[in-house]
Amino acid sequence: MSLTGAQALARTLAAAGIRVCFTNPGTSEIHLLSALDRTPEIRAVLTLFEGVATGAADGYARMASRPAATVLHLGPGLGNGLANLHNARRAMVPLVNIVGDHATTHVRHDAPLQSDIETAARNVSAWIRTSRAAIELPGDGAEAVAAATVPPGAIATLIVPADVAWEVGAEPAALRPPATAPTAGEEPVRAAAAALRRAGARAGILLGGDALRERALLAASRAATVTGARLLCEMFPARAQRGAGLPAVERLAYWPELASRQLGELDEVVLAGARAPVTFFGYPDTPASLLPPGCVQHQLAPPGTDALASLEALADELDAGATGAVLQQSDLPEAPSGELTAAAACRAIARCLPEGAIVSDEAITSGLMLPATTAGAPRHDWLTLTGGAIGQGLPVAVGAAIACPDRPVLALEADGSAMYTFQALWTMVREQLNVTIVLFSNRSYGILRVELARLGVRQGPVSRAQLSLAEPEIDFVSLAAGLGVPARRVRTAETLTRELRRALSEEGPHLIEAVVPAPEHPPAAAPERPPAPAPERPPAPPG
Amino acid sequence: MSLTGAQALARTLAAAGIRVCFTNPGTSEIHLLSALDRTPEIRAVLTLFEGVATGAADGYARMASRPAATVLHLGPGLGNGLANLHNARRAMVPLVNIVGDHATTHVRHDAPLQSDIETAARNVSAWIRTSRAAIELPGDGAEAVAAATVPPGAIATLIVPADVAWEVGAEPAALRPPATAPTAGEEPVRAAAAALRRAGARAGILLGGDALRERALLAASRAATVTGARLLCEMFPARAQRGAGLPAVERLAYWPELASRQLGELDEVVLAGARAPVTFFGYPDTPASLLPPGCVQHQLAPPGTDALASLEALADELDAGATGAVLQQSDLPEAPSGELTAAAACRAIARCLPEGAIVSDEAITSGLMLPATTAGAPRHDWLTLTGGAIGQGLPVAVGAAIACPDRPVLALEADGSAMYTFQALWTMVREQLNVTIVLFSNRSYGILRVELARLGVRQGPVSRAQLSLAEPEIDFVSLAAGLGVPARRVRTAETLTRELRRALSEEGPHLIEAVVPAPEHPPAAAPERPPAPAPERPPAPPG
Repeated sequence: MSLTGAQALARTLAAAGIRVCFTNPGTSEIHLLSALDRTPEIRAVLTLFEGVATGAADGYARMASRPAATVLHLGPGLGNGLANLHNARRAMVPLVNIVGDHATTHVRHDAPLQSDIETAARNVSAWIRTSRAAIELPGDGAEAVAAATVPPGAIATLIVPADVAWEVGAEPAALRPPATAPTAGEEPVRAAAAALRRAGARAGILLGGDALRERALLAASRAATVTGARLLCEMFPARAQRGAGLPAVERLAYWPELASRQLGELDEVVLAGARAPVTFFGYPDTPASLLPPGCVQHQLAPPGTDALASLEALADELDAGATGAVLQQSDLPEAPSGELTAAAACRAIARCLPEGAIVSDEAITSGLMLPATTAGAPRHDWLTLTGGAIGQGLPVAVGAAIACPDRPVLALEADGSAMYTFQALWTMVREQLNVTIVLFSNRSYGILRVELARLGVRQGPVSRAQLSLAEPEIDFVSLAAGLGVPARRVRTAETLTRELRRALSEEGPHLIEAVVPAPEHPPAAAPERPPAPAPERPPAPPG
Repeated sequence: MSLTGAQALARTLAAAGIRVCFTNPGTSEIHLLSALDRTPEIRAVLTLFEGVATGAADGYARMASRPAATVLHLGPGLGNGLANLHNARRAMVPLVNIVGDHATTHVRHDAPLQSDIETAARNVSAWIRTSRAAIELPGDGAEAVAAATVPPGAIATLIVPADVAWEVGAEPAALRPPATAPTAGEEPVRAAAAALRRAGARAGILLGGDALRERALLAASRAATVTGARLLCEMFPARAQRGAGLPAVERLAYWPELASRQLGELDEVVLAGARAPVTFFGYPDTPASLLPPGCVQHQLAPPGTDALASLEALADELDAGATGAVLQQSDLPEAPSGELTAAAACRAIARCLPEGAIVSDEAITSGLMLPATTAGAPRHDWLTLTGGAIGQGLPVAVGAAIACPDRPVLALEADGSAMYTFQALWTMVREQLNVTIVLFSNRSYGILRVELARLGVRQGPVSRAQLSLAEPEIDFVSLAAGLGVPARRVRTAETLTRELRRALSEEGPHLIEAVVPAPEHPPAAAPERPPAPAPERPPAPPG
């Protein structure tokens, strides 16, 4: 066989289970594209901006539990993808970046696109390699997939010089056996069990990562029910399974005041797939830890270990085998009516949420009530902004829709955050993805207005203008139409409900611009609380 | 005085001559915004995406010859700005990034937005510092400006932890005296003069950087005229002054075949403000150097030295004092008519170009004829894609329009490249900038189609689809309207001419979507050639 490096790489990636490749290619990647012509197992999905490619690979991995690849154009292409790679790193998903580079012979000429790609990749990548020869490239690809799939998942960045891609003489490489997550062991189980027994209702189990999947949730709920402990969820989960029929879990609020209140009565906290909770930002005179002073932490299953095994062992250790998990009952909020507010929109969304929906949530301040309003909605998956780099919601929706073509995807966006990666809509049309976007348009960087008020900073004309998106107003209906997405603007709860039902019932992408007032003050809303117990239903297979 | 670190920094930047700050802020930068409330000397210009902020700072610096600042939000915000910072680094402009970071006390908690900002800044920055205390911050700011303004100009990145910004007790810092460009000395002048005398018409003077400003052009032209040497311009100049009444300079073509032909008859080449020319990418069986074998290079004035002084010394050394520079005569192409093609559009643009226009050129394949068609247009400045990271043209137009509010700005864009930083239009409306955008819509990544054909790579269904922007077609008129920019679509040369004249005559931004066919094959067009000599006019003051 006489393959180019690129062809042998593509064959190797396909054999290693890569099924999707999100691209924004350039001249250096032409031979990689050409190799994909001969690799029908890998679907190449074009994006108009690299941040869409990397965010889509993140969303795909969250839902498919396997890596997608990206194809990016040298250092600046990787640069454009970094913000969503930051989010993907925080989501701890597997992801393989293929970054084209100048031919090895061209580097010394310092041509205009020359840059140090390894340095650009450093912040986000657990594994980085610049391939040196066509015959080594397939093996490098196999190692990249192996590195990306070490639990819980990581970003591997493989840099492919153009001549390494175009030279011939390569063969597909042997694959590495996939790594499995180790268990954290028995001692943490015993310590956690003792803590839960000791503290009763003054204990909490804080779940994150894979511990937010169904079987782990059921085990955690049994442990909580038998001891009286509270079930909590990290602030920004990569993927939380939730809704009616699953154990209800109280998600930590973003605002330190609210999160501290949620955790304020805990003497002991057991962490499973989660790290100890801290404030998102540092603030003057506010402690970073959200746990009350003296609260004892127990790490049951750090990220990367088998949280399901540890939680099931914990339930066994607590003799909770016969105890039923507390399952969320079906419970929808009242139908909202009248002029649209963020809170009313959150109720309308809860009432329209279809069974099996995947929600990509980047609604920021407008979505503060969503955890509460959707708690009793039909069972769904909730994907959040794991790394705080806004511009992630629309790309993640792209990737989730490609991973799960039979499930409806709801992207809940804010106007500010939508504008970072709005190019995602074009890919939604091109791939005919069933994504419904509700875009909360409050004509401001609402969260910064709240933060400014919280910090007691006096607003002058400059800072006021810097947080306003009102001049000019962005017409998202026109923007969406420009990229081929049918769109409507709504200003009442009734029209939002109607348009949302219509969009969800039709094929392909839709956008609803939901015009809502901007927030002015710190939110006073109570965080989501666990519902009343209900009988357990038999666990469904993990989704 | 009891100022916060941020306030003292803002005062220092203002005193150091910073007049504009392009922002995309977040929570960590709230105190910086608040400080701008008290610093009326600095105009804060909000962008919806960091790549717009950094590209605008580049465009501003090219036209104002002084740095603008950016305000960016932690590592991911800097990440989004990296591609255009890469271009700015290649443009060798002065630029000061202010990147907010977590409070110093918050770093150890590894909160979601934590990343290593210094590493993210490394590729693009000549100077990087993380400020450690409020009392040090103003001094750090003064050093950042000083580092950015070392000739020819560089990027300085100052990282400002939130607590360093909010703590009080700081005072404005003393300023560093600005650096001036050294001269390269007399020996290179003598060597260059000897080379030009020796080789006559087989010599070339390749100009770049500051050597493309009026006075340097006139000196170079005198040296060329007296010796018979050819005047050439680097492939992607940051800013070239050109048009009727200025010396005509032949710009190197992008395609290696054409550039090699342009340089093929040279025995000696004198470089002034430019580096030795190489191909943009490395290709199989194509040498990287564009100079013919045996061609002798003479570096008269490397970037960062005073190219004007060296070129004037060269003219003196050649006794060219009394020799007239060869000036471009006014010379417009024939009026195009009928169905629009890229070539016809280039002629229409040349015919409409107003005196004093600033052209931000990212038209890629559609603009290949522009150097030739506009050579005899009224005097103007031409700004190009210095680093090859597409998505630079619209942001650079923003910055140029803010630097030169009394001059018309023409942004020549391609559909592919426009989609990376289309958010720039919102800032154009907000700031009411006189920018006219001609957007060549050929529904493809045209340059990649040509590169694919050049490389002899067989196109299959995947690579063909990956280079097509036709499904769905992007409606740029609708996109522009979504951001508040009035727009028209044109399909004939006559309507382009009419709409371009109308847009240029009205205040504020406009967009014209020029639908043109996609390129299929390597271009055969001849590069721009120097025109016939014309009498010199007295040099105007440097612009």
